[in-house]
Amino acid sequence: MASSAPTLRAFNLAFVQLGHVGSDKTKNLAHAREQILKAASREDGPKPQLIVLPECFNSPYGATHFPAYAETIGYIPGEPYDIAKSESDTVKMLSSVAKETGTWLFGGTIPEREASTGNLYNTATVYSPQGELVALYRKIHLFDIDIPGKITFKESETLTGGSSPHYFDTEFARVGLGICYDVRFPELTAIGARKGCQVFIYPGASNMTTGPLHWQLLQRARAVDNQVFFGMCSPARDLGAGYHAWGHSLVVDPMGAVLAEAGHEEEIIHVHIDPQVFEDARAGIPVTTQRRFDVYPDVSA
Amino acid sequence: MASSAPTLRAFNLAFVQLGHVGSDKTKNLAHAREQILKAASREDGPKPQLIVLPECFNSPYGATHFPAYAETIGYIPGEPYDIAKSESDTVKMLSSVAKETGTWLFGGTIPEREASTGNLYNTATVYSPQGELVALYRKIHLFDIDIPGKITFKESETLTGGSSPHYFDTEFARVGLGICYDVRFPELTAIGARKGCQVFIYPGASNMTTGPLHWQLLQRARAVDNQVFFGMCSPARDLGAGYHAWGHSLVVDPMGAVLAEAGHEEEIIHVHIDPQVFEDARAGIPVTTQRRFDVYPDVSA
Repeated sequence: MASSAPTLRAFNLAFVQLGHVGSDKTKNLAHAREQILKAASREDGPKPQLIVLPECFNSPYGATHFPAYAETIGYIPGEPYDIAKSESDTVKMLSSVAKETGTWLFGGTIPEREASTGNLYNTATVYSPQGELVALYRKIHLFDIDIPGKITFKESETLTGGSSPHYFDTEFARVGLGICYDVRFPELTAIGARKGCQVFIYPGASNMTTGPLHWQLLQRARAVDNQVFFGMCSPARDLGAGYHAWGHSLVVDPMGAVLAEAGHEEEIIHVHIDPQVFEDARAGIPVTTQRRFDVYPDVSA
Repeated sequence: MASSAPTLRAFNLAFVQLGHVGSDKTKNLAHAREQILKAASREDGPKPQLIVLPECFNSPYGATHFPAYAETIGYIPGEPYDIAKSESDTVKMLSSVAKETGTWLFGGTIPEREASTGNLYNTATVYSPQGELVALYRKIHLFDIDIPGKITFKESETLTGGSSPHYFDTEFARVGLGICYDVRFPELTAIGARKGCQVFIYPGASNMTTGPLHWQLLQRARAVDNQVFFGMCSPARDLGAGYHAWGHSLVVDPMGAVLAEAGHEEEIIHVHIDPQVFEDARAGIPVTTQRRFDVYPDVSA
């Protein structure tokens, strides 16, 4: 059984729509660190309590790149993790900047190699304001699509899908995790929401074909179906890269209203999360208490 | 186990966004009959193979009206139903006009009284081109909402929720059934889609508050999540009635594109259903084969 979720409290969220992700990992990490510091030191509004990076921020996005950029993290859920002994440069950087800024940091995703099996995953990690690695999530639904003349991509050529839905608790919310293509599978969000997540954050890099068609629709759908805040943080678009990301990092409220949406260039979006919207949505249209689990099973049970 | 679904073939669909639903049931039935004949005799394009009426078309929409307008149908799934002996004037009219026009007829919904229990349901019935009553579906998720200062409605004051998801087979599609508020519960559509429905039709009467917020969003979401055609047929808006329907009868394709949308007055919309769109959607973004039933249960199993 899931432990009881923290009460949703007002907080500020920053999405870093990172640009300039190139082939030099050291530069990618340095630039990400810079942008996290920039988000944390916001001066034109309240500072964020949670900062988010996009999918695949330390390497170019592409099945052939994943093996070359993969790092071994060696995190075991529920066991203490010693950052100082980590083999992952990315984990070390993220932990250090979370501690330096004193914010929660959802460190986007990176290609991860599991030491025991050699399997590669598209993996998200999350850090506390003390710099502890508090959650690791491996993308469950791999991005394998083939729209002739538009886009063909097969993450499964080099990646393995994860198999554990996951969330993390802060002092202001229980935050559900997912990555990009996971958004097309309503069960993952339903499971998290029914376990008490009030906010979902999926790093994601949609593309120029499905982005305009479905990026906003799917996030608004997950938000309204589950009456939760839902956001996806994208890299900026780089037409010089092999994969052209849609950008348009987005945060939607539990009624499906868009709270903030980025353009397609490097940008930081700041969003205030208001628990009243969450409470009013659930009181007004009480779907969370009207489901008919006598007719169909509860996927979270 | 569900029997195997008919292959999806091209067909034409007409939604009758019926107006002038007043307190006189005889007039309501006569007007509905007229509009069905009008849809069937289309001259400016291909004639429809399936005609659809909206929710609650023989009575005003309101919890206090349901008992006064309810009819006893006495249909038992899987058993032959003798229209000539039916106690329901509405069923008799619908059967007769389906036969007269030689089209499939999805007869919207009416308040139904179950003889053995006295329970009232919001019930949809479907007729073959031979006038047979081939399917009966009782709304599973009752419309109980309370948005202060905007809209309060409690179907459960007089209605009981059904408990059987349902669909019907034609020579051109397997069509999944639902009614209005059911659209907020993704499981119902998921169950039908996984049992082979390629098209879903929900009669529905949304309102001036949730209509503009969620009417189109929820239908596009159900369509894209399940890669099916999805449509909801509304009554026209009548600002003289106790309940102000949103109108905007809508049909969406499996990529979430709007194929046709009505305004808010009485109107018939005609839509061509193209199986190629269905096949391309599923081939290009193969979510129907990528679900991770090793991680979460299949609600249709």
